[in-house]
Amino acid sequence: MHKILRVNLKTLSAAIQEIPESYRLLSGRSLTSRIIYDEVPPLAHPLGPGNRLVFACGLLAGTGLSSAGRLSAGAKSPLTGGIKESNAGGVAAFKMARLGIRAVVVEEQAAKGSWYLLVIDKKGPRLEKADNLATLGVYEKASRLYRQYGPRAGIILIGPAGERLQPAAGITNNDPDGFPARYCGRGGLGAVMGSRGLLAVVLDDSGARPDPPVRKDRFNGRVREVARWIRETPQTAEVFPRYGTAAMLNITNAIGALPTRNFSTGTFEGAAKIDGYAVHDTITGRGGEGTPTHSCMPGCLIRCSNIFPGKDGRAVVSPLEYETIGMMGANCGIDELDAIAVMNRLCNDYGVDTIEVGCALGVAMEAGLLPFGDAAAALRAVEEIGRDTPLGRILASGVATAGRVLGARRIPAVKGQGLPAYDPRGLKGTGVTYATSPMGADHTAGNTVRANVRHDLKEGQVGVSMASQAGATLMDSLGLCLMLGTCLKDREILAGLVSDRFGWDVTLEDFTGVAMETLAMEREFNRRAGITEARDRLPEFFYQEINPACGAVFDIFDEDLGK
Amino acid sequence: MHKILRVNLKTLSAAIQEIPESYRLLSGRSLTSRIIYDEVPPLAHPLGPGNRLVFACGLLAGTGLSSAGRLSAGAKSPLTGGIKESNAGGVAAFKMARLGIRAVVVEEQAAKGSWYLLVIDKKGPRLEKADNLATLGVYEKASRLYRQYGPRAGIILIGPAGERLQPAAGITNNDPDGFPARYCGRGGLGAVMGSRGLLAVVLDDSGARPDPPVRKDRFNGRVREVARWIRETPQTAEVFPRYGTAAMLNITNAIGALPTRNFSTGTFEGAAKIDGYAVHDTITGRGGEGTPTHSCMPGCLIRCSNIFPGKDGRAVVSPLEYETIGMMGANCGIDELDAIAVMNRLCNDYGVDTIEVGCALGVAMEAGLLPFGDAAAALRAVEEIGRDTPLGRILASGVATAGRVLGARRIPAVKGQGLPAYDPRGLKGTGVTYATSPMGADHTAGNTVRANVRHDLKEGQVGVSMASQAGATLMDSLGLCLMLGTCLKDREILAGLVSDRFGWDVTLEDFTGVAMETLAMEREFNRRAGITEARDRLPEFFYQEINPACGAVFDIFDEDLGK
Repeated sequence: MHKILRVNLKTLSAAIQEIPESYRLLSGRSLTSRIIYDEVPPLAHPLGPGNRLVFACGLLAGTGLSSAGRLSAGAKSPLTGGIKESNAGGVAAFKMARLGIRAVVVEEQAAKGSWYLLVIDKKGPRLEKADNLATLGVYEKASRLYRQYGPRAGIILIGPAGERLQPAAGITNNDPDGFPARYCGRGGLGAVMGSRGLLAVVLDDSGARPDPPVRKDRFNGRVREVARWIRETPQTAEVFPRYGTAAMLNITNAIGALPTRNFSTGTFEGAAKIDGYAVHDTITGRGGEGTPTHSCMPGCLIRCSNIFPGKDGRAVVSPLEYETIGMMGANCGIDELDAIAVMNRLCNDYGVDTIEVGCALGVAMEAGLLPFGDAAAALRAVEEIGRDTPLGRILASGVATAGRVLGARRIPAVKGQGLPAYDPRGLKGTGVTYATSPMGADHTAGNTVRANVRHDLKEGQVGVSMASQAGATLMDSLGLCLMLGTCLKDREILAGLVSDRFGWDVTLEDFTGVAMETLAMEREFNRRAGITEARDRLPEFFYQEINPACGAVFDIFDEDLGK
Repeated sequence: MHKILRVNLKTLSAAIQEIPESYRLLSGRSLTSRIIYDEVPPLAHPLGPGNRLVFACGLLAGTGLSSAGRLSAGAKSPLTGGIKESNAGGVAAFKMARLGIRAVVVEEQAAKGSWYLLVIDKKGPRLEKADNLATLGVYEKASRLYRQYGPRAGIILIGPAGERLQPAAGITNNDPDGFPARYCGRGGLGAVMGSRGLLAVVLDDSGARPDPPVRKDRFNGRVREVARWIRETPQTAEVFPRYGTAAMLNITNAIGALPTRNFSTGTFEGAAKIDGYAVHDTITGRGGEGTPTHSCMPGCLIRCSNIFPGKDGRAVVSPLEYETIGMMGANCGIDELDAIAVMNRLCNDYGVDTIEVGCALGVAMEAGLLPFGDAAAALRAVEEIGRDTPLGRILASGVATAGRVLGARRIPAVKGQGLPAYDPRGLKGTGVTYATSPMGADHTAGNTVRANVRHDLKEGQVGVSMASQAGATLMDSLGLCLMLGTCLKDREILAGLVSDRFGWDVTLEDFTGVAMETLAMEREFNRRAGITEARDRLPEFFYQEINPACGAVFDIFDEDLGK
């Protein structure tokens, strides 16, 4: 857990490096962003040789702590042109940590058309030729990698969209059940991986002997404490395992913040057919391979992930999550869970972000290319991404670019990144986060839906957004799942866990300091990349058009943000 | 010539306003940029209600002076996101001036799907419904307008691309022979006009009685002096009228600055088939409606425009110019003038900029969508713009956006605008202009091809670019053709002409001051719009890849620009 692995795709070499002292407390997002800040020229082309792709796990990854195995991916984003971190559950970060690696830095580029695989096991890291995997979908790539490296291998991989350098391409990794669909979806990082010539990373931790926690008993005591909090909090003990993240749809629909028909309103008349209850009832009603709850990370006790089966009981997609249901469902006027699940699976297979594609579909529908609510037409449109047609190219280029191509003005994007499934007029604190986060429009950068404010009013939103952004950056910077944040009774325990694991003596303040420095550094990188405060705002139409469901425009203006 | 006409497409009203004293010396680009600076919020969406479209003629328009009738169009650009002025010859500015109007300001937006026509004649201005013209090509629109308003009407109009709000859409006006293809092509201003709901402006100056010059004899004496300079300068007396702007191709090809195959080299082996001699010989050999020389503006003595005929002697397109030949020819590896002429005509008819489309075709060819040099495939691709297919949408969205959609890294664009037909490694001064002009990559913003420097060396380029940008802004701000600049023995005569026309006492310094203020204001508008100095640079590949024809990379770095 104290090494950085550097891989150079031009020289085809790999080298292990000690963590510099100045990086000691950094992991997850704080580490990816710091390496990007230190090593990538802010004006480098995201798909050119000067960019770097960094994977990092958290300081608590690979242990028995629940929800501690988020994989952070970072780079200069081809979608936003700024610094980017996107993280996901799955097994990769857990295995990285057990292999003693805190970060993998991917440098330079392979010759055009040459594809490689990075294999890391107890023998060390090595690059292998992987031309035979190119152009395959994610599921087929994964099954070939399982055949070659065993079904328990951790795999980080991209789909055809990443190979084609499409701006909506994500990077995925697998869950403990072998589903290869835990996506670092945002920011087009799949295109960065594709531009290096790297198709996949295989992590085999069999035989790895990670150091036990230095103060083992205290560490394990704290792990049990966190487990108790998870069990004692209704949200993590009952809601998430039962309804998954789709539980959110009932909340956003109720407050008028569910993006519907390209953000033209905030409640969807078909909500009851795609909400958390519908997801749960469909899954349990069909049975078979389906389950409303499973862990996406080894040892996770919250288990908000699910496996969504078809009518025949066979798994269609895992997970089926709120963001996808919101953006490919309500935002497209579609109320058919089966169609949404199939589109989700296709996007996973092609390797594109369902939020960007859902946004782009909404704009395409508004532009008249296909009707709102027409699930069959939407499915055919998504299939065009797989067939790599011009329309498929447009849909996989991110909503900001797709909107320009389609001559749209109502384009839901900030700093080039599509809005996730929270309308910023009905949930203004999250709107402030969209506007100001260095990541572009991103709910995981600081969602205020649980904050104690009236979400449709102007008052207090800047404060709750800032607190939420700081909190999210803290969790991201320790590789922790945001879901865990909903039940942590005392965040000081996080510093205690780190201290006990490594035999350090660190406090929560140390990590809140890291989080604030990370935010400042990300902001400074963006400034140097030419992304100024003028970009800290929502698309114009949110200030001009009332969302009828909540009766509000977005009225938190540049001057209110008080930078 | 001392009025501003304001037209509001929301209230469907028009009003005449006196020129404010502070605008007294402003015309052409200095006037469009000043009105945009004063009236458009820098963060307004270019296609939203807050943007304005301004047309302006020059202070010397409508007189007997040669080459004085450029029409400036200005707005916040949907292509660059910054301030934009693009100008063209044609009859519109001449007629505006004779009708006593120095600028037309188009405000607000019509209801979606409603289309209007602005008619200006001696009875005054009025808006008329024009839904029947929508979706028609430029040539058909023009012929209907000629039928309704007479063959001598001046018409400013957009094609279907402007109606569809496509970022590569231009605004055209007609020449004295009725060809409606004098394009303000750059910056997507056609989409701004389309977003207002304005399809055309009709200018009927019959019966107009403009004031004669105040000091008539002196004015006419200066007009004759300029005419003599035109006749005495080989460039304007012999080269332009004989070979048109295509004469440039022999120069750029010789110095290694002719963009070839998506800027992969700077000389084209097929150059002799598409250069100035080839254009001249083809036209004169075919005869019929073709001519190697005619005036695009009333009274122009330089006559660099041409009419290019097909094998049957019938006119295919007018004009066929260097930029189009360079970008749709050499940059696409195409050496067939007939194919280039047909693509040019189609782009004119659809209402898109041939530079942007030529750039986008080059990137599409590099991305493997069609082969370099395949004229038939290129023609089919251009036809897709007319058919409004997804590929057509991509090609008409500007090369920066098209390149993102196609997953390209070698995208020849600065500030979102495609590079015209001068490779910045072979012509480094123009490269500095591309990098630093507030207009984005634009040869008309300050082309240094005639400057007395070694074009492939680093030395002196910043200086010649700055001088050239100042000179171009001066000419643009008086509505004068840059061609005239090549023969002006003493620019002080311009101030004399203005003074004699209006009975003022102004000096050249007054106008160089206006030009410098205009550049500063444009830059400030961009800064407020979020376009900072970080955007003052060429695409990365020009710094990294040697242009084999001139043996150079672009090596004038950010720090050399010495802002």
